[in-house]
Order: sequence, then C-alpha cells, then structure tokens
Amino acid sequence: MTPEEFRAAGHRIVDWIADYRARVESRPVMPRTEPGDIKLQLPPRPPVEPESIDAILSDLDRIVTPGLLHWQHPRFFAYFPSNGSLASVLGDYVSTGLGVLGLAWQSSPALTEIEEVVTDWMRDLLGLSGAWSGVIQDTASTSTLIALLCARERTTKYSLAAGGLQAEPQPLVVYTSPHSHSSVEKAALLAGFGRQNVHVVAHDAAYAMRADALAAAIADDRRAGRRPAAIVATTGTTTSTAADPIRAIAEVASQADLWLHVDAAMAGSAMILPECRDLWDGVESADSTVINTHKWLGAAFDCSLYYVRDPEHLVRVMSTNPSFLQTSADGRVKNYRNWGIPLGRRFRALKLWFLLREQGVARLQARLRRDLANAQWLAEQVRGAGGWRLLAPVPLQTLCVRYEPSGLEGEALDAHTLAWVDRINRSGQAYLTPALLDDRWMVRVSIGAETTEREHVEQLWNVMRKEAEAR
Amino acid sequence: MTPEEFRAAGHRIVDWIADYRARVESRPVMPRTEPGDIKLQLPPRPPVEPESIDAILSDLDRIVTPGLLHWQHPRFFAYFPSNGSLASVLGDYVSTGLGVLGLAWQSSPALTEIEEVVTDWMRDLLGLSGAWSGVIQDTASTSTLIALLCARERTTKYSLAAGGLQAEPQPLVVYTSPHSHSSVEKAALLAGFGRQNVHVVAHDAAYAMRADALAAAIADDRRAGRRPAAIVATTGTTTSTAADPIRAIAEVASQADLWLHVDAAMAGSAMILPECRDLWDGVESADSTVINTHKWLGAAFDCSLYYVRDPEHLVRVMSTNPSFLQTSADGRVKNYRNWGIPLGRRFRALKLWFLLREQGVARLQARLRRDLANAQWLAEQVRGAGGWRLLAPVPLQTLCVRYEPSGLEGEALDAHTLAWVDRINRSGQAYLTPALLDDRWMVRVSIGAETTEREHVEQLWNVMRKEAEAR
Repeated sequence: MTPEEFRAAGHRIVDWIADYRARVESRPVMPRTEPGDIKLQLPPRPPVEPESIDAILSDLDRIVTPGLLHWQHPRFFAYFPSNGSLASVLGDYVSTGLGVLGLAWQSSPALTEIEEVVTDWMRDLLGLSGAWSGVIQDTASTSTLIALLCARERTTKYSLAAGGLQAEPQPLVVYTSPHSHSSVEKAALLAGFGRQNVHVVAHDAAYAMRADALAAAIADDRRAGRRPAAIVATTGTTTSTAADPIRAIAEVASQADLWLHVDAAMAGSAMILPECRDLWDGVESADSTVINTHKWLGAAFDCSLYYVRDPEHLVRVMSTNPSFLQTSADGRVKNYRNWGIPLGRRFRALKLWFLLREQGVARLQARLRRDLANAQWLAEQVRGAGGWRLLAPVPLQTLCVRYEPSGLEGEALDAHTLAWVDRINRSGQAYLTPALLDDRWMVRVSIGAETTEREHVEQLWNVMRKEAEAR
Repeated sequence: MTPEEFRAAGHRIVDWIADYRARVESRPVMPRTEPGDIKLQLPPRPPVEPESIDAILSDLDRIVTPGLLHWQHPRFFAYFPSNGSLASVLGDYVSTGLGVLGLAWQSSPALTEIEEVVTDWMRDLLGLSGAWSGVIQDTASTSTLIALLCARERTTKYSLAAGGLQAEPQPLVVYTSPHSHSSVEKAALLAGFGRQNVHVVAHDAAYAMRADALAAAIADDRRAGRRPAAIVATTGTTTSTAADPIRAIAEVASQADLWLHVDAAMAGSAMILPECRDLWDGVESADSTVINTHKWLGAAFDCSLYYVRDPEHLVRVMSTNPSFLQTSADGRVKNYRNWGIPLGRRFRALKLWFLLREQGVARLQARLRRDLANAQWLAEQVRGAGGWRLLAPVPLQTLCVRYEPSGLEGEALDAHTLAWVDRINRSGQAYLTPALLDDRWMVRVSIGAETTEREHVEQLWNVMRKEAEAR
C-alpha cells in the first residue's frame, strides 16, 4: 500500500470509526453471537492475490461489528470502564503510523523522553511525590508480575544472578486479600512462589484487608520457618472498589522489611481528584504501584503506568545489554527495555500525551466527578427501593447490588439474580457483570464509560427494576 | 472529543502520516538528538485547559519527528526490520478506534475468533501442521518467557499449584546457545531458574548450536544431580541469522524428555517461502515456537505469534477464572486470557488480517524474495572487494561484514570498525548496528525494510566503502 493509497483508505477508516462512535448508542450493547459464528464466515486460507479495501470494509460491517461487545457504549456498566477517548485514539494512530520502536534511547529518543515526561506529568497529577519513577507497561497483570519479581529479587539478594529462586533454602511468602485481583495470584504463581505460599489475609466488613491479620500472618510464617517477601494491597478492588488501609499495611511492611505493591489499577485514575486521595493514604511508603490509565481515565488500551521508588533495583532485575543494543548514549539516558519484560516497545506515550493535552486536566477531573455523582445518585435509588440492597460501600463509581424479594434466599436467590442480569444483557439494553460476594451472586454496576450521562444511569435503573422485580 | 471532531482531526492525522511515509527517505535516518533535548522542550505539567489539535500537530513536527530514528526509512539496515506495512497500520486503527477488549470470548467474540482464524492462516502459510495452536503475544521476549514457564511447570508437574519452583529438590536447567537472543537469558532469570542454571552450549563454525555438545551437557548435568528442563533453539540468530539444527536438537530433547522452544522471531517470516523451510527442518517435534510478524513480514508492532502443541498445558499454567470473568459460553470457546500474561487484550488480529488480505500471500512472498536477492547481491560485492570480509554465512537477509585493511587488527581494528559505522550513522545516510562476533566488533547489515529497493542497498555499499576505506 502506497502512502497515497493509505491516505484515501485512511480517511475512510477514520470516517468509519467516527460513524461507529456516533451511532454506538443505537446498537445492542452485547452481540447475539454464538460460539463459532464468526469463524464460519471466514475462508480457511488467506487470499493469494490482493483484496480491495472495499471488501475489507464490507467485512467489518458484515462480520466484525455484529460480533462485538461495545465497550464504548453509554450503557456499558460491566467489568470496569475501558475508555478509548478519541483524542487518545489519535495519539495511538500517530504511534502506529510512525512505526518506530524503543529498544534503546537511541532507537528513537522522542519515544523514551516523551514517556518520561508524561509519566512525570501523571505522577504529579496523581499527587505522588517526585521520589517515584514511572514507565508504561501493557496491563496491570504485567505490572504486578514485575512487582513480585522485584520483591523476590530484593528478598533473595538477586538470586536470579546465581542459583535462582530454586536455590533458596526457605519458602518465600506473598500476602494479599481475598478481594485482590486474579492477576495477583497469577503473578505469584508465574514468579515461582507457588500457591501454598500465597497467603490470603482476612478482610473487614468493608472488604478491605485487615492490617492486624496481616501482621499476625507474617509472625506465624516466620515462626514456621517461612520467609515473608511481599504484600500486594489494593486501592479499589475489582468486586466493590474497596480500599485496603495502605498506611497501616505499609507500617507492617516496613517493620517486617517486605515489599509493598499497591494495585491501584482502577482507583488510580481517581487520584487526579484531590478529594479521593484518602483512599490510598500512605502510598508514599510503598515500593511500587500500578495505575491503568486505559480504564476510567481514557487512554486507549493498553497503557498501564508502573511506578517504583527504586528504579535502579528494577533495572538490575530486568536488564539485558547485548552488544547490538549498546550505544554511546548509554549511562546518560533511560533505556526502558530494562524496566519491563519486552525488548521492543511501542510509542505508547503518545496516546497519553494527546489525551492530557486535548482534554486538559480540568475536563478529565470534571468527567470523573460526573461519574462519582452518578454512582451516588444510583446508590440513593437502590437504598430507597423496596427489596433492593446495596451490599458494599460505594467509595467510587461501582455498586454491588441485589434484589432480594421476600422468600428468596440461598441458591434460589442466586438463580434469580443471574436470571435477571442475563435477561438485561441479552436484551442489549445494557451490559452488567455479575460476581460473587460473600459466596453469593450479586450484580456489579460499574459507571464510567466516557459517554455515560445521568440519563443512561436512569435508563439502567428502570430496566433493572423491571427485570428483577418481574415474577 | 466528539466523533465529528475526531473525523476532522483524524483526516489530518492520516494525511500527516501519509506525508511522513512519502517523504521519509528525504530525512536523515538517525536523529541528531542529544540526551535531554526532547524533555527540555516540554512543559513540566500538563495543561489545565484543553489545547488545540493544531498545537499538538505542530509539536509533532517541531519536537517529535526530529527526535526519531526512522525505522520505515529505505536506508534503515539496523537491528532487524520492523515493517509497519500501511495496510496493517489501518487494521490497527480499526482496533484502537473500536476500543473493545478481550477478557473472555464473550467480551468481544469477533476479537477472539478472528485471532483464531488469522493464527490458523499463518500456521498454514508457515508450513506448520494442524497440530499447532496459535495466539498473539506482544513480543518474542514475552513468548519465550511463557515457553520457559510452561517448561518449568511440565518438568515439575505443576509446582505452581503447590510449593512453587522454590520447593523443587533439584535445580532445573535451561540450555541455549551463545547466539540466542538476550531475551532467552532474561526469560530464564525471570522464571526463577537462575543464571547458574542457564547452560550455554557450544556452537559450530556457522554459529549454530551443536547437538552433540547439547547431549553431552545434559548427560553431565544429570550426573551432577541437576534436572534438565528446557532447550531454546534459534532459527535465525540475532547476530548472523544462523539456524540451529532443529531436527537433531529435537531428537536430543525427545530422548531426554525436555521442552523444546524454537525462537524463530526473525526467520519465521521467511517460512512463508517453501524454499526457506529447511532452516527449521524438524520444528514439528518442538513444543513451542515464536514468529514475530511485526518484523520482516509487515504487521504493525506488536504482533508476535506464539504456537504450542499442547494448548491444554498452556491454559493450565496461565489460567485464572474469577467469578466476574465467568460466562455461559465457557467450555465452548477459547478464552485467550488463559494463553498469556495480561488479562486485557487488544484486537491485535485485525492488523494481521488487514495485512494478509490487502497484500495477498503472493506479494508478501515476492517482497521477501526481493530482500533475499538484495542480500545475496551485497554478499557478492563484499566477497569481491579487497580488504572486505563476510564473517558468517548469509542464509537470509542479514550480513556480518568487516573491512580489514592490512596492518589493522585487535583493538585497533575494533576502533576502526566502530568509527566508520558511527560516521555513517551520524551522517544520516544509512543506519547500521555494530555487534560483537567472536569477541570482535563487526557490522550487521540487515536488509528488509519494506521500502528498501536494490538502489538503496547500492547506496549503502557505496557509503560503506567510502567511510571504511578512508584513512
């Protein structure tokens, strides 16, 4: 494809996306696709001769769009929001179009230095001190894996440079809560700790980790000959956006000399609002933290910010320096390949740079405050409606709700809950994800798609009442 | 940004990229940026109020473009090519614009099923049998890490579900060659094996791993009470694109019951040419392999294909299944979150789908054959020129060359080599990466940027002769 062909086809793709975004509200949120439906429409082999852009665009309409769950839909209330704000989308278009790679500073200086600048910008916006250094990773899953690798290596005084984790005489232990994200256990298992050494600490009535139970678990493990290594605390748990008490946990971590990683993947975006920062009070004493700007804030996926207090340690754990990557600038620059797993890196900073500049901080703050207010409005409705229960505090924009008609409990209540949320999802009017809380199914309502206004939350509440209260 | 604002700004971005690509040849390949130059031009804080697209586009011209190494330049001969073919760029534009995420099949069925189809298409194109299952990862670094985690878990019968690697009584050993990519050692260290247990096997005169030395090393380790676990062989090493003898290595792996991972990150693209498939003869006996379609083939970075023979094992190692991710389709669909590290996944398949369709297989094959012929042409010139030496065979598109004037050797020769390649790079006429081979610096010439025609290779050869032969 020549640049001129790209120009013509590119305009059509931009128009196609503009139309998609403008009309997304008119689509059912969830597709009516059955497993295998998409595959059946595609040929078994790629074409030998070129196909036209017309043919490809036609298949986007015919095959792709009808097979999507529409994450940018104003009645998407599932998981957590994943806002691909259109300014950020354009930043990513520049990145992909340039096609430059960050293997070393010299392999595109602007890629590295704009990443330094935007992670510094974000650090200040989040209220973090200048003692933190940031880098863009793909996801919080990867960031948390890196945090646990760094914890492992600090605790073992760089076992990776010698006999490895497998040479350690005492088992190393990781602490987390039952409400931490599934990626925490996954990271611990991939890092080699083993499931037996992932110790789950009790939570309080608000689903936050108990610091006293954490201290007790650490003392027990030491007595039993195990070696406490790391704590993963969460600001904004997946189920209910509960906030673990970071200050108290950090004191335990400090006394016991453990690595403290704060998973603020979701709630981190809220830290651009000074009034929300109590949620991670004490974070300055942590060793690492992760904030997914590709969730609520609006950076196009993937753009996970990983911040550390000791970048030299991170580099020592993650670095490689073969001859073909050495340049005369080394020692005076950051080589971000030594801050993560992949050697090749996209110019991801552009999508955050575009977002922050085109929106400005004030607009981003206003949008997040809109969502917080919408969540409080919905919480009031739930509290005031007969048979409805709010199952957890609402510190941010996610509600845990259930309709509990009299006479229904246990598995019958579960069946009722799963049935009405499934009816809503299949109707295409809204999309919600059910989850377990205290071993019972309930419905999460996660508000915060960029396009979601009060009217959409009102529409959701109407359909929830209609479907749940129908007998 | 509204969809209409996006439409207008998006057309300007597409035009900007079209102009960039059309004129890239007129730029110096390497920027004249000094460390800190870019950072100094950016404000210390993001703006409070919105900035215009004009302001951002102007900064792209003023700050970003002058600070790039131009990977899509026809005189880019460094590292390996990273072709962001324009059709593939458009596929990525659709992905970013849609803003959908793959957490589960249901979270966007088309994302999962088109990934299944294009990895199947590519499998057949590469000449692999239907016994392989594919998934898109970000990079080969990550793919190789996953391969070594899978090897670790097969060898230890899923230690991750129990006491972890740290509970293993015998040290596990990984085998590779001195010419494997730096990501292999990095992956082994991150997976917890420890540097002492990464055993480097001797190579032959063509820089390929010696299968007999591998077998001897495994026997030695067993006698010493260590536990051989995995072999990473390479098809197309970074320094010289040497090919390890996969068939012989696979026999050793099979007899010793070791995991065999084939790193074909670079040379994998060449497997769409039947005449190149001898390079990885025996690959059907491997357990896993990785091919970076974002290198020579032309998929926009990042698009690394990871293939395995036993997807159930991969899923068992990588899976998580919290309640909020469960859907009624589970069991009948692929949930690719269990095939890699991140939970959230981009719609990466679109960039490969667009590439394969807009180009067609025949054009992709013709372009790769053009590059192979250009490499052979340059090899002939080097062989025929006084004082010049070709230091390794040229099985693909990368040459290892040195100018060795009489009287110069050892460190003086190194200094001369580094000086002339540095002069070329700083001149902006071409960009090359020097590397160590047999402990002496030489110059890699890696041909295969999509825009590189014979005339650009001729220009390179002229400038090489001029700079190297100048005294």
